[in-house]
Amino acid sequence: MKISPVKGTRDFYPEVKFNQDFIFKAWEKVSKKFGYENFDGPLLEPADLWRLKSGNEIPDQMYVFKDKGNREVAIRPELTPTLARMVAAKSKGIARPIKWYTIGRCWRYERAQAGRLREFWQLNVDCLGSESMQLDAEVIVTAIEIMRNFGLNEKDFYIRLGNRQLIESLILSTGVKKEQLKDVSRLIDKLDKIGEEKFKLSLKDLKMSDSSINKLWDMLKLKIEKIDDKSLDAKGKEGLSKIKELLKYIKFYGLEKYVEFDPSIMRGFDYYTSTVFEVFDRSKKFRAIAGGGRYDNLVKDFGGDEVSGVGYGMGDVVLELFLKEKNKLPEYSKNVDYFIGVMDEKALEFALQTATKLREENNVEVELIGRNLSKQMKYAKKIGAKKLIIIGDDEVKTKKVKVKDLEKGKEEVFVISQDKTNNKKAKTWKEKYL
Amino acid sequence: MKISPVKGTRDFYPEVKFNQDFIFKAWEKVSKKFGYENFDGPLLEPADLWRLKSGNEIPDQMYVFKDKGNREVAIRPELTPTLARMVAAKSKGIARPIKWYTIGRCWRYERAQAGRLREFWQLNVDCLGSESMQLDAEVIVTAIEIMRNFGLNEKDFYIRLGNRQLIESLILSTGVKKEQLKDVSRLIDKLDKIGEEKFKLSLKDLKMSDSSINKLWDMLKLKIEKIDDKSLDAKGKEGLSKIKELLKYIKFYGLEKYVEFDPSIMRGFDYYTSTVFEVFDRSKKFRAIAGGGRYDNLVKDFGGDEVSGVGYGMGDVVLELFLKEKNKLPEYSKNVDYFIGVMDEKALEFALQTATKLREENNVEVELIGRNLSKQMKYAKKIGAKKLIIIGDDEVKTKKVKVKDLEKGKEEVFVISQDKTNNKKAKTWKEKYL
Repeated sequence: MKISPVKGTRDFYPEVKFNQDFIFKAWEKVSKKFGYENFDGPLLEPADLWRLKSGNEIPDQMYVFKDKGNREVAIRPELTPTLARMVAAKSKGIARPIKWYTIGRCWRYERAQAGRLREFWQLNVDCLGSESMQLDAEVIVTAIEIMRNFGLNEKDFYIRLGNRQLIESLILSTGVKKEQLKDVSRLIDKLDKIGEEKFKLSLKDLKMSDSSINKLWDMLKLKIEKIDDKSLDAKGKEGLSKIKELLKYIKFYGLEKYVEFDPSIMRGFDYYTSTVFEVFDRSKKFRAIAGGGRYDNLVKDFGGDEVSGVGYGMGDVVLELFLKEKNKLPEYSKNVDYFIGVMDEKALEFALQTATKLREENNVEVELIGRNLSKQMKYAKKIGAKKLIIIGDDEVKTKKVKVKDLEKGKEEVFVISQDKTNNKKAKTWKEKYL
Repeated sequence: MKISPVKGTRDFYPEVKFNQDFIFKAWEKVSKKFGYENFDGPLLEPADLWRLKSGNEIPDQMYVFKDKGNREVAIRPELTPTLARMVAAKSKGIARPIKWYTIGRCWRYERAQAGRLREFWQLNVDCLGSESMQLDAEVIVTAIEIMRNFGLNEKDFYIRLGNRQLIESLILSTGVKKEQLKDVSRLIDKLDKIGEEKFKLSLKDLKMSDSSINKLWDMLKLKIEKIDDKSLDAKGKEGLSKIKELLKYIKFYGLEKYVEFDPSIMRGFDYYTSTVFEVFDRSKKFRAIAGGGRYDNLVKDFGGDEVSGVGYGMGDVVLELFLKEKNKLPEYSKNVDYFIGVMDEKALEFALQTATKLREENNVEVELIGRNLSKQMKYAKKIGAKKLIIIGDDEVKTKKVKVKDLEKGKEEVFVISQDKTNNKKAKTWKEKYL
């Protein structure tokens, strides 16, 4: 019976998993450098967890079903609500600041296409416990440092930075009415996809005047220095002062060249309250590489204390495409240090003992399937083994083995101590070097 | 709105995730030492994947539902069928032997209790491409080495080893009829749970004679040396010779003290064809820590070439309980190398630059939430930071910082080079040591 995998998923054969692991390791390394700790939540959660504040699209894209106990559960489409639920459950018992990261498998029922699959992984980096823009700066800097860690620089990517309080105030200042705000915001979010003409026509459908539409269009290109403080309401003024503070902190890190104010940035989640940002490739060829923002009410919304926070999600699918385009993915290799060939069955015991000794510090493969020597040597090269040892009668008798360096072509002789006990304290390979 | 997590799941707060990561790292390390490569498949697969050969229990325990495209999918309850499907899809294109491992999230709808949860992770180690018992030996040895890696030895755990061909032949030799074989096997599988009395009564219900029951009871304690070759059918003889070969290879590794023949070992999966084994704690306090076996037809069953293989799954839930009981889990620590305290806002820029420099090689936290100095120092100790730096006016002026070793109590002075460019080639911290 032939069974095909589910649409929108990937089969991670080792050479494919290799790239994903490369990305995961970079995510983990940079998160830890900034003092973030790994956490995780369940894959299935009550479906309501994403109905409260995750916006319009996410609940429609969820994989929802009833389990055998008649609970309505969903496979997580994103990770922030789980984090907020967990913080809410213990909000008094966790030291501040709360600095957590996770690399989580998620599912969304979307149209599968380049850069968008139904199963994907997301790095989430979150910092909670204060309203200070220092948190926002640090979180954004981790995203920049991850990209720099891959060998990318300000010519390759940048941060589109906004602030919901400020942007909403700016939109209102163009003549948009309060009750139109949601619809207009959604159109701005889609602007890159639908283009100028359709965008303006849609605004007309909302009964906006031509002059308002033109003002809005100009506003979307506004530089932060040009914002007229007087045109803003109180919330907008607060937003402006916050984003200026945030930009100051990013400058403290020396990373200001990576960040651009962008009044057209929206993000779909309803839980974002002020800072919003995206990691974007400069060529704008791909969808957002990461997206995040500040959620000051989410923990409280889930029944916890008021714990404000900021964080982002960075998906593996777009990122891998981007790294491939920029030639930043490493060449696949199996990472085997030694291959031990076996002349015949009589040599096997000593070959396995040699392998055991070498495995104290190395990755070692031994011939398992009884091939002839020339096939074994071909295999050793095929898997990219760094060194080769062949065990035959001579080696068994003398306990001396020749190590051939397959990269440099050199050959050296080693002695294996006769230790059948698997005693870790026995003399190591290196001490026995002749 | 307070939302509780789904029953049978765990919230992995960082101090909980810490233990799981410790287990995952050991799994990964040992698998790689033996030349196994990481792979993965989708979380959701067509439900039929587990209906073919995964036995009776598994299909009943699956989380099955229809997705929005009306596909009947299941969350994976185990990983071997995915592996077999993937090998089948490319069976000609993968070099032999196929040595793969994965650490996979799985779900089963079972009664949640100590050692059994609905969401769990499993290490799978699989070797395919030959019928040689060398493969079985290597796979079993990886399981032993994982346990030894945790600091456990032959007094703590052992391998229960069986062979389906041999055991079925032995059962038949006690007078059990062919058509009773499945029911009797299932009772043997449950023996540890139901006990001797209920076991024998249930056999009586199957209309077995007292003499057959007694023979079967004695058979379940049979030593391998005592097996009478003549009482076995052809399959049984083949099984006996295979298991003897396997024991010989395990002896080659010097690990025979970890392995015991056990005719009562069954394993639930229908796809096992010969070798079956479990990792068990000597005290038998816990359920099996790992279980596996050889599946010679599974790849073919999924439409591939005939590729025989052997592998096992080791779950994280029982293992963690066992490691806890044996005191083999490490003490939780946040693993922060430096905490950088900040006197006031004026000191922040230099503090962040110092952090950036140190992060080239260390995990570093900077004060983010504006606490007073004594609270900052308390926090540094609470998170177990190894070293402490405080940045104030003096440090900003002189660019000299004092590093306090919080473990040894010593204090040293360093100079930070004035590098605002985040240039990786700038002189490092160490070179500037006074």
